[in-house]
Amino acid sequence: MSVTLAADLSTDPRTTAVLGAVPHSDPRVVAQLLSRAAAVAAQVSMTTPSDRSRWLEAVADALLLNQEELAVLADQETALGLPRLRSEIAGAARSARFYASVAVDGMYLGASSETVNDSTTLSRWNIPIGPVAVFGASNFPFGFGVFGHDVASAIAAGCPVVVKAHPAHPRLSVRLAQLAVDALATAGAPEGAFALVVGFDAGLQIVDAPEICAIAFTGSQGGGMALLERAARRGVPVFAEMGTVNPVFVTRDAVRTAEQVDSIANGFVASFTLGAGQFCTKPGLLLAPAGVGMRAAVSGAVTLVEPAPLLTPGIAGHFAAGIVELEAASQAAAETVDAGAGTSAQTGSWASARLVSVDLHDLHPGSRLLEECFGPVALLCEYDDADAAVRALTHLQGSLVASVFIGEGEGEGDEAVKLVAQLSARAGRVTVNAWPTGVANTWSQQHGGPWPAASRADATSVGAGALDRFVRPVALQNARPEMLPGALLPDNPWNIPRRIDGVLTVPLPRAAHPKVNK
Amino acid sequence: MSVTLAADLSTDPRTTAVLGAVPHSDPRVVAQLLSRAAAVAAQVSMTTPSDRSRWLEAVADALLLNQEELAVLADQETALGLPRLRSEIAGAARSARFYASVAVDGMYLGASSETVNDSTTLSRWNIPIGPVAVFGASNFPFGFGVFGHDVASAIAAGCPVVVKAHPAHPRLSVRLAQLAVDALATAGAPEGAFALVVGFDAGLQIVDAPEICAIAFTGSQGGGMALLERAARRGVPVFAEMGTVNPVFVTRDAVRTAEQVDSIANGFVASFTLGAGQFCTKPGLLLAPAGVGMRAAVSGAVTLVEPAPLLTPGIAGHFAAGIVELEAASQAAAETVDAGAGTSAQTGSWASARLVSVDLHDLHPGSRLLEECFGPVALLCEYDDADAAVRALTHLQGSLVASVFIGEGEGEGDEAVKLVAQLSARAGRVTVNAWPTGVANTWSQQHGGPWPAASRADATSVGAGALDRFVRPVALQNARPEMLPGALLPDNPWNIPRRIDGVLTVPLPRAAHPKVNK
Repeated sequence: MSVTLAADLSTDPRTTAVLGAVPHSDPRVVAQLLSRAAAVAAQVSMTTPSDRSRWLEAVADALLLNQEELAVLADQETALGLPRLRSEIAGAARSARFYASVAVDGMYLGASSETVNDSTTLSRWNIPIGPVAVFGASNFPFGFGVFGHDVASAIAAGCPVVVKAHPAHPRLSVRLAQLAVDALATAGAPEGAFALVVGFDAGLQIVDAPEICAIAFTGSQGGGMALLERAARRGVPVFAEMGTVNPVFVTRDAVRTAEQVDSIANGFVASFTLGAGQFCTKPGLLLAPAGVGMRAAVSGAVTLVEPAPLLTPGIAGHFAAGIVELEAASQAAAETVDAGAGTSAQTGSWASARLVSVDLHDLHPGSRLLEECFGPVALLCEYDDADAAVRALTHLQGSLVASVFIGEGEGEGDEAVKLVAQLSARAGRVTVNAWPTGVANTWSQQHGGPWPAASRADATSVGAGALDRFVRPVALQNARPEMLPGALLPDNPWNIPRRIDGVLTVPLPRAAHPKVNK
Repeated sequence: MSVTLAADLSTDPRTTAVLGAVPHSDPRVVAQLLSRAAAVAAQVSMTTPSDRSRWLEAVADALLLNQEELAVLADQETALGLPRLRSEIAGAARSARFYASVAVDGMYLGASSETVNDSTTLSRWNIPIGPVAVFGASNFPFGFGVFGHDVASAIAAGCPVVVKAHPAHPRLSVRLAQLAVDALATAGAPEGAFALVVGFDAGLQIVDAPEICAIAFTGSQGGGMALLERAARRGVPVFAEMGTVNPVFVTRDAVRTAEQVDSIANGFVASFTLGAGQFCTKPGLLLAPAGVGMRAAVSGAVTLVEPAPLLTPGIAGHFAAGIVELEAASQAAAETVDAGAGTSAQTGSWASARLVSVDLHDLHPGSRLLEECFGPVALLCEYDDADAAVRALTHLQGSLVASVFIGEGEGEGDEAVKLVAQLSARAGRVTVNAWPTGVANTWSQQHGGPWPAASRADATSVGAGALDRFVRPVALQNARPEMLPGALLPDNPWNIPRRIDGVLTVPLPRAAHPKVNK
């Protein structure tokens, strides 16, 4: 007789103590929630961006009102620390408001209309795609959690959402869902516009459900690929942000002085160990010129990093196994610095930072070194020949973000421009003299990247473009006025940008037009 | 020993006579073309929209200059008739110019930039995705042929293209490719920005090639699904426009008079037999109120339709088999009108128009009646209960286009609005008192639809949005000015719409700003 675990266990990563249990959703309840989401989809899609803005503002208020309670609860389940978690809650509140403002701006509606000829008119705009299933991430319990980027942008776009609770923080998930349900109801959102389900089987059920019209996922390549394969059977779009190794290229001009070397070494270590290295934007590989002492500088900085608990025992186990794999993949040159080598063994999911030094020729296509290892580890590769190092970049998988550090030196301009263009062809974002961790939620953000960093290179899960995932265009031919949405009524009641008879028109200035959400 | 056919045979559908043979591409040649496309991709991506506009204008000129020769050649291989083919060539030329104007307009670039805070700037715009493989359709040898919508919009967006010749019109494909290569070279496009390959194996080779960054396909569900499955292995986006049954719903108010019944009956038959029923926008199902004589009127109109040759013997065979399947799927009520029943058997790929009358209860989920049957056949379903008929619509697969015919009668407004909203949720385009065949190429066109009518409900293969398939966003953080494209230089040299610090700005009026391409 096989026994199925009927609950997600809430576990303290610092001690592996079990703090509680959240029962899995009954399949019949999941079916009801799906039916309700489908039934309410038309009603949600007919609301105005301003209506949905009010809903999102209410959730943002609720997040801030309960900030301390949520941070404490999240810290119990993630060990990410109160300061980081408080800040992440504030960020989630800002994001909800930002997506509200993007909806109200109305550009995402892609509204256009024209008279084609005497007998034909066409009107086109983006309609909400329908109920969206969201699978959040372990490493951002708020940013990519129960009311994070995916959920807020889907609701902003006019879609009901069914979220699966992440097993790494189930009690937090339930509490966030309660707050969201209450805030949405108070703000006038129809019942069923938001729902939470718990458990692996419930996750499969929502992936397979015909009611679900799009799936957003943030997590590992393994999880994302399994989801993609399963969802492909019924053609439902999957927006999976999976992540790979994010490279950093340091030119010789960037490290002319010892101070520059130290600054980059310290910045690199701070960036790849941020949040115990559990960022999908973690810089996983530093390519730096040989002969400037970069290895010593980075190694020195790594030894100063305090051990930190990883999110779950499972992640800690994968991290330990990953280190072994990385060392094996770098047969000749691997030299690992272990920040915790001198300390006694920790209980729970604790891990110490690691640096694995590799040779350029180890970075060949298909090498394990070019696959992500989640946690506080990065590769350092010192190069003699800059051209060979640039060529090695082309062996990397598509990535979410790539970084270059360049000097102010004369003559480097052209090379740096070329390097940025090359990296742009292989990443969703390229940072110049800046570390990749830290993703501002603004109009111009891009968080996604070429396969297999993400399933859809044209999509972003952060920034104004996040709404675009959850709409699709529809054209009405010879529509009567009463069939048109507010987006296309003659007097432009929503005050949005539109293209009328081929000419783009911008709205009147708004009293409080949001420029950039920092 | 197995023998592989080493050439595509050029065949006259009217007689099945073989007119010539076009040898399949050698795999080594295909590999060279792919390498060349990849090598030239960066150069093509750095050209300005105006550069590419000149290339497209040159191809448009070449199409018109050779219009008669191309029409004759196409007619030999497709039997679609000279008037239709001349018109399709003119349409392809207009489309090339329209996509050029969309590129120059620059909205598709999604250019935006902002100062996030004292240490961070972000710039985001859409970059060309890279070399695109195009698989055209048998039924539109120009519109979806070697220089049709997919090819022109991909080049407009800055991508090299590798086209596979359609085996139904191989000699035309080769001739079109010659014209395109010459015109592009004369207009200054780099060699390798366009290439043609011939043969099934060459098709597989370009699908699997790592150089290919996106695939556009127009054709059957079977072909599209096979392509999707194969391409999923490496995560390359596939924009497959496959088509299903496009429904037409006639309300009781729309057929209050015998004239209205006749008008709809005649319009329906003209639309579903246009081009021998070989349109992906063919209205495949008419739902009309019982008791107004619709069946007699439609049957009468069908009997007047002249037999016509289908595109290939294979299509003719599938059509004949499809009729048998449709009749079998409609166990109780099937009654088929065969326009050619009284005529003697035709040679070649000739087929006569058919109408299959079915009952509402036959239209259940999974029925063969709800799958496309390519060719001059449609279903007629007379309903007693309008609500039941509307419910039956929800059993249909997602479709490219759905149509409603409504009256001017008072009180119908609300119902009609509801009906249009319901159809919008299941189709890419909804026409009101207009037949679905005929797709204007304008800013507001949408030619695509929910799965499985298309692989990507967010995509269109006709209209300004066609370019969006072939770009992806990239963000630069803290870019130096010399790293930015013209799209984002401070003085806006390309004169395009941009969002700067959150505020959308529109360009100065152009001397000859294209409004709508009719």
